[in-house]
Amino acid sequence: MSAGKRSAAGSARSDTATSTVDLHASLLPLAFLVGTWRGEGVGGYEGLDGFHYGQEITFAADGRPALGYVSHTWWADEPRDGREPGSPLATETGFWRVQPGEDGKPVVEVMLAHPFGIAEIYVGTVTGTRIDLDHNVLIRTATARDVTRSVRLYGLVEGCDLAYAIDMEAEGKPMQSHLSARLHRVSD
Amino acid sequence: MSAGKRSAAGSARSDTATSTVDLHASLLPLAFLVGTWRGEGVGGYEGLDGFHYGQEITFAADGRPALGYVSHTWWADEPRDGREPGSPLATETGFWRVQPGEDGKPVVEVMLAHPFGIAEIYVGTVTGTRIDLDHNVLIRTATARDVTRSVRLYGLVEGCDLAYAIDMEAEGKPMQSHLSARLHRVSD
Repeated sequence: MSAGKRSAAGSARSDTATSTVDLHASLLPLAFLVGTWRGEGVGGYEGLDGFHYGQEITFAADGRPALGYVSHTWWADEPRDGREPGSPLATETGFWRVQPGEDGKPVVEVMLAHPFGIAEIYVGTVTGTRIDLDHNVLIRTATARDVTRSVRLYGLVEGCDLAYAIDMEAEGKPMQSHLSARLHRVSD
Repeated sequence: MSAGKRSAAGSARSDTATSTVDLHASLLPLAFLVGTWRGEGVGGYEGLDGFHYGQEITFAADGRPALGYVSHTWWADEPRDGREPGSPLATETGFWRVQPGEDGKPVVEVMLAHPFGIAEIYVGTVTGTRIDLDHNVLIRTATARDVTRSVRLYGLVEGCDLAYAIDMEAEGKPMQSHLSARLHRVSD
């Protein structure tokens, strides 16, 4: 944050292994996400050749009741269709927050913007270190890719890596596996 | 961009007064936005006391066909309701891009995510250094603020400052002035 800004009321300082994080109390169910993660994934879709990609994701806490989120991916396969290892692929940015559910369980809300004409919202649950984002609403510009719906699953796996899988319904094809990756924490 | 990533095909290097920017050719109509801007604004709404705020906006070009966008605002008024000068207010993040319109004129598409349960898309026009974002579609979580629609106007004003005005329709009240600010460029 630039000069002149201070953290918001209601934030708890949560000490991860190495550093202090300004985490709003409502975000404790997502504390395990905070930090920067890097790793590799596999992408594909009906009619699309499979490919490997590199990825960096950052979840940032600043004391307010939402985590800042940004993801960058890059080509990590043999040169193909003008792409070479390191060529930037996709970027998405937005916010993750937690709201109290009617049953008292935490509800996760994710608001995302994409550079190819799409903005979307996911709503789901967090249980321990597993997040199921199974409700999705998506809006598109007239020139955007023809994506209709997606679902996402995130979770910590052995070795405390972050893994996720994204299924997508697009271009008139049924919901199917699209992207999945495993990332290791590179900083808190 | 982190190690291993290179700028995308189709990008032009545009030299602004002091530095080189990796601007995709499609974004030339928005070249004047690229950089970081800082300044002050005035906010208000029916039933809400007026207030002053500080703001920093960054438009980032990385060679791909969309500008990265992030805005942070902070309280810049007398202490009130637990806020004091510098207290963080709102953050929004997303992407701006240009698509060819049917009449050959550039169409501006803006995809934004907000931390309070809203994602939205604006579509509008750019004429010289004036951008009218008058088409807006917005999706909200069940717990989000009751905003239904907004329109935005951005433009360079004398002294090459960036000014904007945002009108909003919310909480059952008619479309009306909500935020306006004037920012000066602090870096390219």
